[in-house]
Amino acid sequence: MLKLVKTTSRKAGLSPGSPVFIGEKVTEKFGLDMVDYNADNFSVSTPVRLDEFHLLKDTPSNTWIRVHGLHDAATVDKFCLSFGLHPLTIEDILHTGQRPKIDHYEDYLFLVINLIKYDDATREMSMEQISFVLGSSYLLTFHEKDSDIFNDILARLQNNKGRTRKMGVDYLLYALLDRVVDNFFSVLEKIGEEVEELEEELIADPSPETLQTIHSLKREMILLRKSVWPLREVINGLQRDETAFMGESVRVYLKDLYDHTIQVLDTVETFRDIISGMIDIYLSSVSNRMNEVMKVLTIFAVIFIPLTFIAGLYGMNFNTSQSPFNMPELNWYFGYPFALLLMAGTTITMLIYFKKKKWF
Amino acid sequence: MLKLVKTTSRKAGLSPGSPVFIGEKVTEKFGLDMVDYNADNFSVSTPVRLDEFHLLKDTPSNTWIRVHGLHDAATVDKFCLSFGLHPLTIEDILHTGQRPKIDHYEDYLFLVINLIKYDDATREMSMEQISFVLGSSYLLTFHEKDSDIFNDILARLQNNKGRTRKMGVDYLLYALLDRVVDNFFSVLEKIGEEVEELEEELIADPSPETLQTIHSLKREMILLRKSVWPLREVINGLQRDETAFMGESVRVYLKDLYDHTIQVLDTVETFRDIISGMIDIYLSSVSNRMNEVMKVLTIFAVIFIPLTFIAGLYGMNFNTSQSPFNMPELNWYFGYPFALLLMAGTTITMLIYFKKKKWF
Amino acid sequence: MLKLVKTTSRKAGLSPGSPVFIGEKVTEKFGLDMVDYNADNFSVSTPVRLDEFHLLKDTPSNTWIRVHGLHDAATVDKFCLSFGLHPLTIEDILHTGQRPKIDHYEDYLFLVINLIKYDDATREMSMEQISFVLGSSYLLTFHEKDSDIFNDILARLQNNKGRTRKMGVDYLLYALLDRVVDNFFSVLEKIGEEVEELEEELIADPSPETLQTIHSLKREMILLRKSVWPLREVINGLQRDETAFMGESVRVYLKDLYDHTIQVLDTVETFRDIISGMIDIYLSSVSNRMNEVMKVLTIFAVIFIPLTFIAGLYGMNFNTSQSPFNMPELNWYFGYPFALLLMAGTTITMLIYFKKKKWF
Amino acid sequence: MLKLVKTTSRKAGLSPGSPVFIGEKVTEKFGLDMVDYNADNFSVSTPVRLDEFHLLKDTPSNTWIRVHGLHDAATVDKFCLSFGLHPLTIEDILHTGQRPKIDHYEDYLFLVINLIKYDDATREMSMEQISFVLGSSYLLTFHEKDSDIFNDILARLQNNKGRTRKMGVDYLLYALLDRVVDNFFSVLEKIGEEVEELEEELIADPSPETLQTIHSLKREMILLRKSVWPLREVINGLQRDETAFMGESVRVYLKDLYDHTIQVLDTVETFRDIISGMIDIYLSSVSNRMNEVMKVLTIFAVIFIPLTFIAGLYGMNFNTSQSPFNMPELNWYFGYPFALLLMAGTTITMLIYFKKKKWF
Amino acid sequence: MLKLVKTTSRKAGLSPGSPVFIGEKVTEKFGLDMVDYNADNFSVSTPVRLDEFHLLKDTPSNTWIRVHGLHDAATVDKFCLSFGLHPLTIEDILHTGQRPKIDHYEDYLFLVINLIKYDDATREMSMEQISFVLGSSYLLTFHEKDSDIFNDILARLQNNKGRTRKMGVDYLLYALLDRVVDNFFSVLEKIGEEVEELEEELIADPSPETLQTIHSLKREMILLRKSVWPLREVINGLQRDETAFMGESVRVYLKDLYDHTIQVLDTVETFRDIISGMIDIYLSSVSNRMNEVMKVLTIFAVIFIPLTFIAGLYGMNFNTSQSPFNMPELNWYFGYPFALLLMAGTTITMLIYFKKKKWF
Repeated sequence: MLKLVKTTSRKAGLSPGSPVFIGEKVTEKFGLDMVDYNADNFSVSTPVRLDEFHLLKDTPSNTWIRVHGLHDAATVDKFCLSFGLHPLTIEDILHTGQRPKIDHYEDYLFLVINLIKYDDATREMSMEQISFVLGSSYLLTFHEKDSDIFNDILARLQNNKGRTRKMGVDYLLYALLDRVVDNFFSVLEKIGEEVEELEEELIADPSPETLQTIHSLKREMILLRKSVWPLREVINGLQRDETAFMGESVRVYLKDLYDHTIQVLDTVETFRDIISGMIDIYLSSVSNRMNEVMKVLTIFAVIFIPLTFIAGLYGMNFNTSQSPFNMPELNWYFGYPFALLLMAGTTITMLIYFKKKKWF
Repeated sequence: MLKLVKTTSRKAGLSPGSPVFIGEKVTEKFGLDMVDYNADNFSVSTPVRLDEFHLLKDTPSNTWIRVHGLHDAATVDKFCLSFGLHPLTIEDILHTGQRPKIDHYEDYLFLVINLIKYDDATREMSMEQISFVLGSSYLLTFHEKDSDIFNDILARLQNNKGRTRKMGVDYLLYALLDRVVDNFFSVLEKIGEEVEELEEELIADPSPETLQTIHSLKREMILLRKSVWPLREVINGLQRDETAFMGESVRVYLKDLYDHTIQVLDTVETFRDIISGMIDIYLSSVSNRMNEVMKVLTIFAVIFIPLTFIAGLYGMNFNTSQSPFNMPELNWYFGYPFALLLMAGTTITMLIYFKKKKWF
Repeated sequence: MLKLVKTTSRKAGLSPGSPVFIGEKVTEKFGLDMVDYNADNFSVSTPVRLDEFHLLKDTPSNTWIRVHGLHDAATVDKFCLSFGLHPLTIEDILHTGQRPKIDHYEDYLFLVINLIKYDDATREMSMEQISFVLGSSYLLTFHEKDSDIFNDILARLQNNKGRTRKMGVDYLLYALLDRVVDNFFSVLEKIGEEVEELEEELIADPSPETLQTIHSLKREMILLRKSVWPLREVINGLQRDETAFMGESVRVYLKDLYDHTIQVLDTVETFRDIISGMIDIYLSSVSNRMNEVMKVLTIFAVIFIPLTFIAGLYGMNFNTSQSPFNMPELNWYFGYPFALLLMAGTTITMLIYFKKKKWF
Repeated sequence: MLKLVKTTSRKAGLSPGSPVFIGEKVTEKFGLDMVDYNADNFSVSTPVRLDEFHLLKDTPSNTWIRVHGLHDAATVDKFCLSFGLHPLTIEDILHTGQRPKIDHYEDYLFLVINLIKYDDATREMSMEQISFVLGSSYLLTFHEKDSDIFNDILARLQNNKGRTRKMGVDYLLYALLDRVVDNFFSVLEKIGEEVEELEEELIADPSPETLQTIHSLKREMILLRKSVWPLREVINGLQRDETAFMGESVRVYLKDLYDHTIQVLDTVETFRDIISGMIDIYLSSVSNRMNEVMKVLTIFAVIFIPLTFIAGLYGMNFNTSQSPFNMPELNWYFGYPFALLLMAGTTITMLIYFKKKKWF
Repeated sequence: MLKLVKTTSRKAGLSPGSPVFIGEKVTEKFGLDMVDYNADNFSVSTPVRLDEFHLLKDTPSNTWIRVHGLHDAATVDKFCLSFGLHPLTIEDILHTGQRPKIDHYEDYLFLVINLIKYDDATREMSMEQISFVLGSSYLLTFHEKDSDIFNDILARLQNNKGRTRKMGVDYLLYALLDRVVDNFFSVLEKIGEEVEELEEELIADPSPETLQTIHSLKREMILLRKSVWPLREVINGLQRDETAFMGESVRVYLKDLYDHTIQVLDTVETFRDIISGMIDIYLSSVSNRMNEVMKVLTIFAVIFIPLTFIAGLYGMNFNTSQSPFNMPELNWYFGYPFALLLMAGTTITMLIYFKKKKWF
C-alpha cells in the first residue's frame, strides 16, 4: 500500500537547503545518460567526469541528461551545483515525496511531479518523484529509481520520428510530461476495470474483503488526487509562463496537455464518487443477506414452536380415569393420528400465512 | 452501463498528435455528406475524392460536411489534413471519449462535446463524441457512428424554415449545439420519470433491485455531470470568443444556449441530491420491513413460550399418590379444562399487553 | 408533489425560438389587463385589439400590462411580436419551467422568475413562472395562470398609497419582485413551522410516514433552492445593470431586495442542514424503539427458558423404583412445591440480575 | 429553542419600507438614553421630546443614543425620521430577525447584527437584533429589549478609561462591535464546555437524550453560523469602507476585529465538524450496548436448549419392558445422575467454547 | 486532549488592547535571551534592565530576543511598550490561543503562529502560540513556555553554519518558520504511523476503543487544520508583503516554505479523508462480527428445535393399548433407536442444508 507520509524527521532541524536524500533506500548506484541532439545529429553517452557538464549549458545543440540513483546525495549535489542550481532546488530533488510544483528561477525552470505506477500482480500503486530542470538548451531529469518510462521517447528521438528532434528542449519537456499524463490514463483504466469488477462482486457475492478493497481503492483515489491536483497547477503554470524557457510554438501543445490533466482529474473525482456510493451498496447487501438468513432461521423456529407445544400438551399427565374431561383424546382410537394431523394442519396454515405475507 | 474509462492504453507511448482511433469498434464505414447552402441555394452531395475538399474552404457559400465512421483513422487523417487541421485536433477527433472542450486555432475553432443517448428499452444511457470544426465559411462535424440527431436541422435547412439558411455557419453551429442541449433535456425528462417511479416504488415495495437502480442512476448522474460541466465551459468559451468565427448576431443565441446548459446542470445536480436522499429512504424502508417481520415472529414465539411451559409443568411425573401436595391438579375433575383455560388466559393477557404497548 | 422536470420533449427538434407553450394544460383563456398610470392619473382597461398595443410603447405615462393564460401560444406570440420582442424572449415566456434569468436586449430587459405557492391544506408547494419585460415606459408581466399575487400592489397603485405611483415602471418592477421575495418568506415561515412540528414528532412518536415527510421536505428544499439561487443572480444582475432601464433612484431598493434574497437563501440552506440532521435522529429513534421491543421480548423468553427446563427435568421417566438415585424428588412429600419454589427462585434471581444490569 | 424563522407574514403585501415591528411581543416600553461626550465632558440624559434630536446631528461633541423597546413602531418611526433615516433603514430596524448587513447611505452607515445570548440554566441560546446608525458625529443603537451588554462600555466612557473618550463615534462603534464579538467567544466557550461534557457522556453512558442534545447543539451551530458569516462580511465592509464615516485611525482596530470574527467562525465550523462526528459515536455506542445485551441473552438461551432437549429425550414414553433397546437408561441404577452429569457436561463444554470464541 | 476553546471570558468586557494574559497558568518566570549577531560576531546575553532594549532597535547588527513566560503580563507589557509595539499587538501576544495571522504595522511586522507538539507517550497533541515581531534589524519571539524548538537554529547561528549569520533578521524569521513547518511534518509522520496502525487494528481486532481512537484522531485533524489553514495565509502574506521588512533575497525561500505549508495542508486533508472512511470500516467490522456470533447461535438453536419436538412427540401419553394407531412406535422393538436415528438424520439434513446455503 502507498505510504501516507515519507519519513521526513531525518531532516527536521537541519539548515534549509541541506542536500539530504529522503526516500526509500534503494541499492541502485548513481548513474546518468547524456543525450545530445538537434534536427541532424543524435548521440547518447555516459560521461564520467561530473565537473565538465556545465560546459554543455551553452552549446547550441539540445542536451537531455537523465540522472537516476538519487540516494547518493553528495554526488547529486555536486552534479547540480555544477549546473548552478539553487540549494533549494537540490533539496527538493533529493527530498522525494514532494508535492508537484513549479519554481521559476532566473536561469532555469524547476518542476517536480509524481509518476504513478500500478503493479498488475498486487493491484497496488506506487509513486515515484521525477524532477525536471529546464534551461535554455538543456533539460535535466532526476529519477528516484532507474525508470524506463521515457525509453520510448528516447527511441523516437533516436529514430527521428515525430516532431521531437526538430524542436527544442521545451518540446522535449512537453513530450515527457505528456508521457507521464498518458501513464495516469493507463493507471486509471486499470483502476476503472477494478472498480467495474468490484461493482459486479458487490451484487453477486459481497464479503468482508470487498469492503477492504473498496477502502483501499478509496485511499488510492485520495492519494492519486493529491498528485494530480498540483500537477494541474504545474502545467497551468508552464502554460502561463512568461519567461523564455517555453517557446511560443509549444503553447498549443501545453493547452492540450492541460486538457488531458483536467480529464485525469475528472476521472479521479468520478471514481471517488462511485467508490463512495459502493460502501452504501456493500453495507446494504451484507445486511440484506444477514437479514435473509436470520429471517429463514426465525421462520423455521417459529413453525416448530406450536408443534412442540401440542406435543407438550399431550405429554401432560392428567388422570384420564378421574374424569371424562381429562384429556379424553389420549384414549381416542385415532388420538395419535388426530394429534399428528393437528400438527400438520398448524404447519400448513403457518406456511400459507407466511407465504402470503411474502416473508420467504 | 456506461463504461467508466475508454481504453487509452493503445495510445500510451505514441508520439503526441498521432492519428489513432480510440473508441468502440464499429463496423460502419467512413462516409460523409456535404451540404452547400446560402439564402438562395441548397445542395447535398457525397463527394468521393477527399483531396478536393480544401477547395471549398474559401467559397462564398456556406459548407457543412458531416463525417461519420471514425474508425478508419487513416482516411479521417487524410481528410482533416486537407483542411489544414492541426495534428492535435485530428488526435482529439479520433481519440473519442474526450472531455468536452474548445480550442482556438488561427484558422478555425475546434469543439468537442458529448452527446448522450437514452435507450428507452434498457433504460441505459450511452455517450457519443461529436467534434466540430468551424472555419470562416465551413463547418465540419465528426460522428463516431452514423447519428441521425442532426437530421431535423438538415431538413429545416433544405426546406428553408427558420433562420438557418439566411445566416452563416456560426448560426448553424449554434443550431446544432442547441439540438444537443435539447437532447439533454429529453434524456433528463426520461430520467426524471424514472426517478419519480423509483420514489413511489421505494415507499410501496422496496427490493434489493431498487438499490441497484438507485446506484446505477447515481452513477449515470455522475457521468452525465462529467459531460455537462465542461459543456458549460465550452459554450461560455464560444460566447466570450474574440475571434471572428462567431458573428455578433449569434451572441444573443449563445447567451440563451448558455442559460439552457446551466439549467441542464441544475437539473443534474437536483437529481443527484434527490437520488442521494433515496438511499437513506431505501435503507430505512428495508430495515423497517425486516424489523416488522422479526417483531411479529418474535411476538408469536413469545406467546407460545408460557403455554409450552404450562404443558411441561403438567407433564412432570411427581407422584400424586405420595402426597396431597404433589400436583393435585392432575386428579381434579376439571384438571385438563383448567389447564387449557390457564393457557387461554395467559395468551389473552399477553395479547392485550402487546396491543397496549402498540407492538403490533 | 413538485414535478422534477417539465415536459420539454414536445420542443426538441424544433427551430430555436419557436413559440410553443410548454407547461401544464390549463383551460384558462388568454386574457390581459392594462394599467396606465402616472402620479396624477390611473386607469385599468382590458383592450381587445392586440395590434394596437405597440402604440403604447412610447407614451409618457407608465403602462403595466398583465398577461395570463399562456397556453394560447399563437395569441401570446402575436402580442409579443407587436412589442418587438425577440423570438428567444417569446420562446422563454411560453416555455415555462425556465431557470430564473435576466436577459439584456437593446429595447428592453427580460426577466424570468419562479413564484412558489404553498397549499396549506395539502402542505405541498407548487411553482409558477412569471416573466417580466421592462421597457422604458412599460412593464409586461406574463403569468401561467390567473395569479392574484400582485393584486395588492394594483390596489396600492389605484389608491395612490406608497411611492409606486410617483415613480416609474422600474420601481413597479422592484415592487413586484419584492412581493415575490416576500412570498418566499411566507412559504419559508410555513415550512419552518412544519419543520418544528416534525422535530417534536420525531422525538415523541416517529413513524414511517415521518421519514416520508422528511424526504419530501428535503426534496422541496432542493427545488426551492433551485429557484432562489438564480433569483439571486437575477436581482444582482438588475442591480449592476448599466442600461437605462433601472433608474438610479431604484438602486437602493434593489440592494435591499438583494439582501432579502440572500436571507431567503440562507434560510433555505439552514432548513436543508436541519432536515438532513433529522434523518439521523429518525433512524436512531426507530432503531431505539425496535431495540426496546426486541429486548423486552427476549428477556421474557429468556426467563421462561430455565422454567421449561425444570419442568422437562421432572417430566423424565427414570424408574424411581429401580434405585434411590433416580429422581427421588418425585416421591418427596413436598416434591411439587419444591419444584415450584425452584422455578420461582430462578425467576426472581434472573429478574434481579437483569434489573441490576439495567436491561429493563 | 431558537425559532427557525421570525413571523414575517404580517408584513407580506405591505408597501416596501413600511414601518411595522416584526419580533417577539415584549411589554417593555420605548425608551432611550442619550450619551454626549468628548475628551473632556460626559453626560447621560433621557430626553422626552423626540423631535429635537435632529439638532444634535451636527454638534461638535459625540452623541450616542441607545434606543430600546422597538415594538412601539410608530414612535421609533417618528424618531428615525427626525434623523433623516431612509424608510428602508427604518423597516430593517423594526423588522428584527434580519440577516446581519451593512448599508451605505449618503448621510450615514447602517449596520444590523445579531447578538447571541446563552442562558446558563436552560443551556439555550437566544438571539437579539442590534441595529447601528453611524453618522459623522452621532451613533444610534437600537435594541429589541433593554440589553445591558454595552453597560461596561458606558462605564468606561464615564470613567474615561481606555481610548474611547479621546476618539470619535467611529471608535465607539468599533468598541461596541468588539464587545459583541467578545460575547460570541463567551458563548462559544460555554458551548465548548457542553461539547466536551457530551463527549465524555457519549462514552460513559449514552442515552436517547444524548442524541437530542447533539441534535440541538448541531442546530444551534447552524443558526450561530448563519449569524456569524454575514457578520464577517459586515466587518469586512466596514474595513473597506471608502466613505468618511470610519476614520483612518480606526482601521487597524477593525482589522483586529475582523481577525477575531474569523476566529469565531473557525470555532463554529470546528464545533460543527466535531458534533457531526459525535452522531456516529453515539449510534455506534448505543448499538454496541444493545448488541451486548442481545448476545448475553442469546448465549443464555442457547445454553439451555440442549439441556431441555436431554430432559425431553428421557421424557419419552418408549416401552422399556418391550425391548432392551428401548431407553435402558431409565432403568439404570445411576440413570438420573447420569442424565444430570450429561447436562452439566454439555453446559461446561458450551461455556468453554463460547469463552474461547470470546463471545462473552 | 486539546481544549476546544481557550478561556476568554476573563477578558470579555475589558477595553480592547488590554494587556491580560490568557492561557494555561504556568509557574515559569518571565525570562529572555538576547542574541546579537552579524557575519563576524555573535553574542548571547540575558539583560536585566528592560528599559534599555529600545536602544538596540537601530543598531546595525542583527538582534534576536527570545521571550518566554508570558503569564507575567505586566512585565511583558512593559517590555513590548519599550519597543513601541501597538496595544493590539501586545494584547495578541498575551492572549494566547489566537488564530495564526499577520499584521502589518508601520514599524514592524507582527506574526502569530501555533506550534504543535506531539507527546509520544500519551499520543496526544498540544498547541503553543509563538508570536514574532520583525523590525528592520531586530526579531522578537514570544513563547508561552520555555520552548527548545529553536535551539538548533541558535546553535547554527553560533557555529556560523549555513546562511543564517550572513543574512538579516528576515532570513532568521524564515529559518524559524521553516523549523515550525518541519515540526508539522514530524507530527504528521507520527500521526501517519498511528493511522496505519489503526488501519491494521480495524481489520484484525476492532474494539469500542478503536472508535474512540478514530474519533480523537479526527478531532485532532480538525484542530490541526484550524492551525495550518491560517498559517498558509500568513506565509502567503509574508511572501506578498510589499514593505521593506522581508528582503528580496528571502522571497525564493518563502516560496519554498509556502509550498511546504501547502504540503502539510494536503496531508492533513488526506488524513481527514482516510480517517472518515475508517468509521465506515469500523462500523461494518463490528456489525459483521456481531452478526456472525448471532448467526452461529441461531443456527445452533435451530438445529435443536426439531430434535426437541421429536422428543416431545414421543413424550405424549396417548394410550397405546386403546388402539394400534396410538403411537405404535413406543412398543416397537427398535423404537428408541429409531427415534434417535430420526433425530440424527434430521440434524445431518439440516447441517447439509445450512452448509449448502453457506450459512456457516
